[in-house]
Amino acid sequence: MKFSIEKDQILEALQKVQSIVGQRTTLPILSNVLLEAGNGKLTLTTTDMEVSVRTSIEADIDEDGATTLPARRFFSICRDLPSHQVDIGVSNEDVATIISGSYTCKLEGLSRDDFPPMPTFEESFSYTLVQGTLKDILQKTSYAASTDESRAILNGSLMAFRDNKLTTVCTDGRRLALVEQEIDMPDDAEVDIVVPTKTVNELIKTLGDEGEAIIKTSATQVAFEFGNIFIISKLIDGTYPNYRQVIPSQCEERIAIDREMLLSAVRRVSLMLDDQAASVKVQITENRMELLTSSPEIGESREAVPVKYSGKDITIAFNPAFLMAPLKHLDSDEIFLELSDELSPGVIKTNVPFLYVIMPIRVS
Amino acid sequence: MKFSIEKDQILEALQKVQSIVGQRTTLPILSNVLLEAGNGKLTLTTTDMEVSVRTSIEADIDEDGATTLPARRFFSICRDLPSHQVDIGVSNEDVATIISGSYTCKLEGLSRDDFPPMPTFEESFSYTLVQGTLKDILQKTSYAASTDESRAILNGSLMAFRDNKLTTVCTDGRRLALVEQEIDMPDDAEVDIVVPTKTVNELIKTLGDEGEAIIKTSATQVAFEFGNIFIISKLIDGTYPNYRQVIPSQCEERIAIDREMLLSAVRRVSLMLDDQAASVKVQITENRMELLTSSPEIGESREAVPVKYSGKDITIAFNPAFLMAPLKHLDSDEIFLELSDELSPGVIKTNVPFLYVIMPIRVS
Repeated sequence: MKFSIEKDQILEALQKVQSIVGQRTTLPILSNVLLEAGNGKLTLTTTDMEVSVRTSIEADIDEDGATTLPARRFFSICRDLPSHQVDIGVSNEDVATIISGSYTCKLEGLSRDDFPPMPTFEESFSYTLVQGTLKDILQKTSYAASTDESRAILNGSLMAFRDNKLTTVCTDGRRLALVEQEIDMPDDAEVDIVVPTKTVNELIKTLGDEGEAIIKTSATQVAFEFGNIFIISKLIDGTYPNYRQVIPSQCEERIAIDREMLLSAVRRVSLMLDDQAASVKVQITENRMELLTSSPEIGESREAVPVKYSGKDITIAFNPAFLMAPLKHLDSDEIFLELSDELSPGVIKTNVPFLYVIMPIRVS
Repeated sequence: MKFSIEKDQILEALQKVQSIVGQRTTLPILSNVLLEAGNGKLTLTTTDMEVSVRTSIEADIDEDGATTLPARRFFSICRDLPSHQVDIGVSNEDVATIISGSYTCKLEGLSRDDFPPMPTFEESFSYTLVQGTLKDILQKTSYAASTDESRAILNGSLMAFRDNKLTTVCTDGRRLALVEQEIDMPDDAEVDIVVPTKTVNELIKTLGDEGEAIIKTSATQVAFEFGNIFIISKLIDGTYPNYRQVIPSQCEERIAIDREMLLSAVRRVSLMLDDQAASVKVQITENRMELLTSSPEIGESREAVPVKYSGKDITIAFNPAFLMAPLKHLDSDEIFLELSDELSPGVIKTNVPFLYVIMPIRVS
């Protein structure tokens, strides 16, 4: 195996595949990136046995072949190479000789035979979205997924394909984010899948703005194809809870608020809180929202935010991190907070099909 | 106590004093910054009982007084304030009310009576340098100080004032950095002081380029005055080892090398090393230096660096981190590596009065 490549090109390809490589893996081969040279292309593959990422780039192939190299060290070496031109040759013992300018190294790899084969994929259905749309949907919801491993089904993003709509939902039981997106799909292609958060983060990192992203599902896996990237991931097994029942069918009051103004005010009043379980009290009166916090022995703070509101006075308390999370991931100037009373969940909406349910904190 | 101040001004002042505030201090008062308002000035002081930092800024003082506030939280609050104008009033119970735009907080402080008084200082001698010169001297040496607490005397920078020269030295026993600087001083003002690394780092962070820095010494303390900053620090007690005996009086050979080229080549070949105790082998022949590394099961690397050299062939090995450290902190284009043989210390010099001794590693 022997090929020449541009430094920037191999770096970009390694960046796309290296993040899922385990740093503390018990199987050394999973720290490695599979390199396959052939047909004028270099193909790079990494896997952690749950999710696999593959990308291909054009390269000047002198001799076809395959090997695996330690992904992070290979990346560090490529990043620091002195010349734009990189020549790589691999011996039959899987030792790669990397030459660039006056620098030469021999990097010990492992046989491609030890690398787990890409899972076979029995496609059931296929859906197509614009890359930027899929990225946007995932960004606006994924932060609300649970990280509590005892509730595995919530450690991912539900993607429900139904009635020409893709509904994406994340929840940890105390807040829920949902985005609905119209999508062209065959009538018999209705399916619910739960994609692990690690795969979702990988997608957010690698999806571009333009061009198509094709989503393919099977009974136990999902595959994403976009640009020159192919990601295949196990699905989380189980039935996602009936999230519809936590979404209030109707709220009595609706407050229009400048998103960035609310975000910075909540962040400021939160500086007085050390406790993760602390709450920010929200007092809503005509055209005015007041945020209040207090901590024993630290102090207290308050800030008034102008809003558009003409309903009844409401006082309610929220976890400030849960209140800030959607505000950080949205891009609209104005958001709407819908409330009924101090014990009922609040709902944040925007002018696009986004919805965030947040449970209030009961304060004495 | 009551004053108004510009957000940017109080932020800049807090930045200068807050870094020595302990994060895990057992005495809560040491987490606080002392604020004193009077004579049209606000004075900020922090201390960790070893080093104290004080700075003053102009402020619009409505009512004189003093209090102490939790330094890091006060800084976070100031950084996030919504308006440029900040009004601060402090009650007799040391509760500060901070108002900026639509934001108000009450931050609980501690009485100024509990704050350790600034140490009294019996000045023996006084020396003056340009701020940028002092900063440069400290930067070019401090990285070589020991962090091994069992050898306390090496946990700082020796500053020896003697014969109209300031000689600054740091060593950890395996390498030594030294800078000599001419200085105007009275004949009877000869003194050796060892300044703790924490104080040196504080100086490197806060010293500017222009303007004078005045160094004052007493038997057990040192004070630095520059701009509107006053730093007072305990000295490390004891006698600094006789560092002169580790500096080779003469080396047989001298190699001229491009500093950045050597630095990047050493960094590159070090990527093949995981072990902190690993070495880079340096093979010097006519006008050529070759760097070599190897690690079992990882691989090996080599890089050639063009040098100016016409002496005998020498092969020597160094700790790569110790070889890179001075190269990172120097600014000259060219450095000189002086060597005698593979077992004698190497010396790095530049065209300015700087010297770095590095012990070789014996390799089988």
